[in-house]
Amino acid sequence: MKSNIQLHPNGRLRHLLTIEGLSRDILIQILDVAKQYAVLPGEPVKRSRLLQGRTITNLFFENSTRTRNTFELAARRLSADVLNFDESTSATAKGETLLDTLHNIEAMHSDMFVVRHNESGAAHFIAEHVAEHVSVINAGDGRHAHPTQALLDMFTIRQYKKDFTPLKVAIVGDILYSRVARSQILALNTLGVTEVRIIGPRTLIPTEAQVLGVHVYTDLREGLQDIDVVIMLRLQKERMMKDVLFPSESEYFRQYGLTAETLEWAKPDVLIMHPGPMNRGVEMTSEVADGPHSVILEQVSYGLAVRMAIMSMCLGEMP
Amino acid sequence: MKSNIQLHPNGRLRHLLTIEGLSRDILIQILDVAKQYAVLPGEPVKRSRLLQGRTITNLFFENSTRTRNTFELAARRLSADVLNFDESTSATAKGETLLDTLHNIEAMHSDMFVVRHNESGAAHFIAEHVAEHVSVINAGDGRHAHPTQALLDMFTIRQYKKDFTPLKVAIVGDILYSRVARSQILALNTLGVTEVRIIGPRTLIPTEAQVLGVHVYTDLREGLQDIDVVIMLRLQKERMMKDVLFPSESEYFRQYGLTAETLEWAKPDVLIMHPGPMNRGVEMTSEVADGPHSVILEQVSYGLAVRMAIMSMCLGEMP
Amino acid sequence: MKSNIQLHPNGRLRHLLTIEGLSRDILIQILDVAKQYAVLPGEPVKRSRLLQGRTITNLFFENSTRTRNTFELAARRLSADVLNFDESTSATAKGETLLDTLHNIEAMHSDMFVVRHNESGAAHFIAEHVAEHVSVINAGDGRHAHPTQALLDMFTIRQYKKDFTPLKVAIVGDILYSRVARSQILALNTLGVTEVRIIGPRTLIPTEAQVLGVHVYTDLREGLQDIDVVIMLRLQKERMMKDVLFPSESEYFRQYGLTAETLEWAKPDVLIMHPGPMNRGVEMTSEVADGPHSVILEQVSYGLAVRMAIMSMCLGEMP
Repeated sequence: MKSNIQLHPNGRLRHLLTIEGLSRDILIQILDVAKQYAVLPGEPVKRSRLLQGRTITNLFFENSTRTRNTFELAARRLSADVLNFDESTSATAKGETLLDTLHNIEAMHSDMFVVRHNESGAAHFIAEHVAEHVSVINAGDGRHAHPTQALLDMFTIRQYKKDFTPLKVAIVGDILYSRVARSQILALNTLGVTEVRIIGPRTLIPTEAQVLGVHVYTDLREGLQDIDVVIMLRLQKERMMKDVLFPSESEYFRQYGLTAETLEWAKPDVLIMHPGPMNRGVEMTSEVADGPHSVILEQVSYGLAVRMAIMSMCLGEMP
Repeated sequence: MKSNIQLHPNGRLRHLLTIEGLSRDILIQILDVAKQYAVLPGEPVKRSRLLQGRTITNLFFENSTRTRNTFELAARRLSADVLNFDESTSATAKGETLLDTLHNIEAMHSDMFVVRHNESGAAHFIAEHVAEHVSVINAGDGRHAHPTQALLDMFTIRQYKKDFTPLKVAIVGDILYSRVARSQILALNTLGVTEVRIIGPRTLIPTEAQVLGVHVYTDLREGLQDIDVVIMLRLQKERMMKDVLFPSESEYFRQYGLTAETLEWAKPDVLIMHPGPMNRGVEMTSEVADGPHSVILEQVSYGLAVRMAIMSMCLGEMP
Repeated sequence: MKSNIQLHPNGRLRHLLTIEGLSRDILIQILDVAKQYAVLPGEPVKRSRLLQGRTITNLFFENSTRTRNTFELAARRLSADVLNFDESTSATAKGETLLDTLHNIEAMHSDMFVVRHNESGAAHFIAEHVAEHVSVINAGDGRHAHPTQALLDMFTIRQYKKDFTPLKVAIVGDILYSRVARSQILALNTLGVTEVRIIGPRTLIPTEAQVLGVHVYTDLREGLQDIDVVIMLRLQKERMMKDVLFPSESEYFRQYGLTAETLEWAKPDVLIMHPGPMNRGVEMTSEVADGPHSVILEQVSYGLAVRMAIMSMCLGEMP
């Protein structure tokens, strides 16, 4: 997959489709720009007129109110207009092709598409076909990538740990089906952490794990040893019903649930992250979720800043 | 239920969850502020930049486009940003707890939650758990309260009758299941009207009616005698199907429907109110609904002003 | 049907319900105003503060995200507030009458209703009942009219052909059920084209075709001879299932599909138009849809300009 499609000839960011092919410099630049927009819950929001007169379109083929709202808020805080197309109920269902849908909305003068689709490669496909002035952000495509989630995770880690180099980071859960995990692993490696581990049942570890440059653990305690950051993945309950590879909920918690006890295997200043929505009592106990190591809500706040940064870098002059 | 949670330590309004525990002074203050925003249909809308930069989130666990739109319009006329979360189709359905949903949205920097929920006490519960700078408005919770509706009714009465003290007000219909009625009775008593009557079939009168300080009538004509204001409740047809306590639609109209004839029992300058949506030919004839005593559409217009007042008192400097 | 309801006593446009009864002068004026707002895809959008402080309400009783979004964008680019009521899921379903719904929303201070309804005459009915300061735009009612679509088609023709007088225009497809075709025929005749032809299976030609002042062809090649503009209608697949009058999809394409070959019967500089969403391989080949004669995406861009023009003429001072 060509990923230099993501950059303008001069090296500036045009699309954000995947972490693959993005240099350490670009990732750091995104995190630096995001820092200017970042505020914690309760602090006054930062706004800008940078994208006034621009139109950003949420093109969601897969329903996700939460994600769509974060992009809508980010766009509005940069003074852009926002259009929402929920294509699961729209013209695509009437037999129109994806490209025709795209070009139609583009003809309404959209400057950016934020795309979510249940097929891997959908955002790439769209990026290959938009007009020259249009940018595309991948808000999750199939099992492939979810780069804005990965970048907000990186931003959160950087806020607390400053330097990526010495870190050992563990990703726990259903790696096999997770577009979030794929993007996180790529970002962590590009940013030069010491070690990335994935921890989960053998059946949920992708076979190409070695290729990804990660260390595989099936035992939680063992995998947590000496770890600086733990990223829990969401257990997708809807998959448990139909998939024999999957353990039961309580069995999963018993083996991979984060508790005060299992957490003791990690470093004393370990960070606990989760992309949400969380299943309390499955991925972790409430004690851990609400405890001093958890930065789960900070991730949400920083997510807005990171999305504002990406939008302003793709569409605006550099702030 | 503690209701002083609704006030800041200095006595200023922070949340609006219920009329219970609010003083006459606070209610009058809300009505006074609303007066500055009030315009009749067709008059130019009043706008303000008071809440520029603030984010107001509609968090509706129970579908009501009409109500949500009134809050959205009120917020926009104060220059706030508005987020809509329809949680019946969202992350709560994926196993996330109400509090996690709340804290997630809060982390996107929401300054106010407008909450509608089919369980009594939901707005209170949320208000007890939000961060210090966040306000909560109850837009209807179960059978418990619907304070903004009650306040817009009070505002409408005040526009036409000036002084609450001498008034006799009748509420007609399904009091038992009505959160609107509960809030109206509390507001009317706090504002010091002479008498509040409730009129309806014995089976739809709550047993604690005496406690509420109202006079109960099962005969419409008797109850209307000497009355200044009649507030009709909406007959919820969906309940008629499953509830044996409920009379048939035509039987209900025959006994409790407002007609030119039954209206003659009230005072000559009686006001007719209804929260909408109205079932013509059930709660009242079209002759009454469109007649000179009806202020039903004025209620809608004033509803915007009252919501703007509450938002600006909770979030803004006092205008 | 009275159509002068569409004009103020001084002749200025108040509503846009149908092309019927509108003079050539008014149509030309709309096209002239639209020219000021028109930009092609990729060009910077034109904005105006003309409708700042005004509220425009999309009142859609029939679901159409695409159409609703074009009106929402047009309104926002004129700085108006926009309210969306999807009445298929709203209070009308609770037994409220259409007029009560209307008056309720009007009482929230709406200056314009954009109405889409599956019953012919719905927009007219609403226009007859709104308050004096309120305008109504018909965004499609049953089989009756879709005047904004017809006007954007006229605008597109004018951009490329300058003068309507010498033109021969063919409309191809399911004329019988098409509100778009009815509006297009009226507009073309009012603007004084030389000839309007309709081309389609005998079963899909309305019996009053002669009255409409059009020439009927059942053979595509014959109908295309000497033609300047071809407007393809959308084949509504959903109708094919239940309607015996309707040919199969492939049979339809074989007889009425536009191809490089059939296009040769038209003039060398023929324009190809389609209201979208398009069924490629049914109404036309991809070669034609993406070919040099196609102005399908330009129609979408110009659609925004035409809607902005109508809104600003109905609500604003003349720009």
